[in-house]
Amino acid sequence: MSDDGFALTEGDLLPLALGAALLGTGGGGNPHIGMLRVREVLRRGAAVRVVPIAAMDGDARIGAVGGIGAPVVGMEKIRQGEECLRALRAVEAAAGARIAALISAEIGGANAMEPILTAAQAGLPVIDGDGMGRAFPELQMTTFFIYGHAASPAAIADDKGNVVLFREVVDMYWLERFARHIAVDMGAGAGFALPPLRADFLRGVLVPGTVSEALAIGRALLAARAARQDVVARLADALGARVLFTGKVIDVKRELRGGFAVGAATLAGVGDHAGAVAQIDIQNENLVLRVDGRALAMVPDLIISATLDTGEPVTTETLRFGQRLAVLGRPAHPLMTTPAALRVFGSAAFGYPDLVFTPLAGGR
Amino acid sequence: MSDDGFALTEGDLLPLALGAALLGTGGGGNPHIGMLRVREVLRRGAAVRVVPIAAMDGDARIGAVGGIGAPVVGMEKIRQGEECLRALRAVEAAAGARIAALISAEIGGANAMEPILTAAQAGLPVIDGDGMGRAFPELQMTTFFIYGHAASPAAIADDKGNVVLFREVVDMYWLERFARHIAVDMGAGAGFALPPLRADFLRGVLVPGTVSEALAIGRALLAARAARQDVVARLADALGARVLFTGKVIDVKRELRGGFAVGAATLAGVGDHAGAVAQIDIQNENLVLRVDGRALAMVPDLIISATLDTGEPVTTETLRFGQRLAVLGRPAHPLMTTPAALRVFGSAAFGYPDLVFTPLAGGR
Repeated sequence: MSDDGFALTEGDLLPLALGAALLGTGGGGNPHIGMLRVREVLRRGAAVRVVPIAAMDGDARIGAVGGIGAPVVGMEKIRQGEECLRALRAVEAAAGARIAALISAEIGGANAMEPILTAAQAGLPVIDGDGMGRAFPELQMTTFFIYGHAASPAAIADDKGNVVLFREVVDMYWLERFARHIAVDMGAGAGFALPPLRADFLRGVLVPGTVSEALAIGRALLAARAARQDVVARLADALGARVLFTGKVIDVKRELRGGFAVGAATLAGVGDHAGAVAQIDIQNENLVLRVDGRALAMVPDLIISATLDTGEPVTTETLRFGQRLAVLGRPAHPLMTTPAALRVFGSAAFGYPDLVFTPLAGGR
Repeated sequence: MSDDGFALTEGDLLPLALGAALLGTGGGGNPHIGMLRVREVLRRGAAVRVVPIAAMDGDARIGAVGGIGAPVVGMEKIRQGEECLRALRAVEAAAGARIAALISAEIGGANAMEPILTAAQAGLPVIDGDGMGRAFPELQMTTFFIYGHAASPAAIADDKGNVVLFREVVDMYWLERFARHIAVDMGAGAGFALPPLRADFLRGVLVPGTVSEALAIGRALLAARAARQDVVARLADALGARVLFTGKVIDVKRELRGGFAVGAATLAGVGDHAGAVAQIDIQNENLVLRVDGRALAMVPDLIISATLDTGEPVTTETLRFGQRLAVLGRPAHPLMTTPAALRVFGSAAFGYPDLVFTPLAGGR
């Protein structure tokens, strides 16, 4: 199935940001500032097409760009706006390749918007897909790297004029370590560019269709709100997710540990779940959902919290006592649950060595 | 005065290492491992000429390489041996320039040897001079940067295959910050290459003749030992230094503060200085010498500690209770004591805002 995609309009931006925030599973940063920047660029006459990877020639080079900051939720700063573009240019020069399109490594949260902004600036299309179909806190946690993409050349740039090129890097873990420390030096508001990906390689490893999916999810939610429908049911439908729990937040614990926001929220069931107690373990994103002590969903499957009344995405840093939430479970893409993938971002990688991944029913 | 320099022989290496360690003023790392590596390369048939900067064409590009580690004395690791060469190649590629010769940024300590090792590997000469005539703990603390050299492109490489290029860097302080953090990630045994220096620029900003000077100092010391002469007097003569104090170490305090080894040694006078008490303030290198509370010498002038009996250089980490030391003061090169230079490595830069630089008598 090959089509030539669609042009992104100003009206798409709000639903896209909403859908991206939901796919952030509690993390990934807020796409709002990025959305405003993209809107500004579109209003000045730029155009961005969202295209399927099948529309690209096999030897076309795709650039993956995004924001990178301190490994702590909520540390995103307002940035100058061309950081990713400068990182991209550095990678192009180092690789001796012209980039033909951009892709998000992480559709969940703020990094849904960054490639669109850079694409608008550079006059390039954006690929409909990403490297995880959700959010994750570290660079190595993408299908691109898991399935063999080189770790260099990559680059990072700030708003002051600094550009650092990771010219030769042993593996994706070294890239994460170097880039994270430079990002912290740069003040937690840096743009990065991963090594250019060949389109024919990307076809086999991307999580496809996630830009249009985020857009559809956001549109469905906005439509449900406008029509005063049951937003949670409509959201579950749009997400291809099940409502695993509904409850009221009765406790939130959070602390910084090794740069991660680590903690747990406890919910007392309401409605169908009255009498039950749920716990969501958090490491930047929602990691594990337990109901009455039993693990119902776990990383890399998506555990999405939204307010019961309006379906607003609730991030791990906006969790508050008294909130009434729906917790939805969405199966991860099959590329995200292979043994190779689970080694990189299965529960063991987050410090739960004894938790064996049990996929949500309805896995794609 | 133009000459074509001299070929470095195996027999030069020990006196050169000894002289470099003395010019390290208590810091700069131990040149011994570098010396062994250079010896190995020379024995395999490599040759290195030490040439004055005047021997180079004005538009020749000079590479400055060295080891960089955690900002703590004594953290040098045994390294693989080609880190500086790989960093140099990355900088050459980024600058689009072929390097015609190498120079040390820091003649004091281990980084006297690194450019010689890299020169032997690359088949290049080494410039007789450096960027400070002593040792200092941070990258910005060289005459190269103080007198306007660009901060990029620079590079750093480790023994595992990682090469990070600082492609565009706002200033020398940013370069220090980025490079230091990457060096810590790399395991404190990395090689760096500064941006290539044009020979005509370098002529006006290097501290000249310091390689042959280190060699002469080491030779004088070895000769004095062999002849059972007064090593301290001979050393003072070779260093162009005055003996400011002789005494016995009665107290040593050291702690890590902001990555620096900070502390002080107290000496009770012996011989001509019997009855007096000296204190040497330390920040990786010897920073200030006070005798009976009066500051006799201070950074950037060189405060050199050597054992009274054999003239062996005493580094800040080998200072021990009971050692009998001579403390010698050697005036810094005039390029090191201008207002611009004092802003970068005067006593205020080390946290002594009230100490006004009073140059040692006999300044060059």
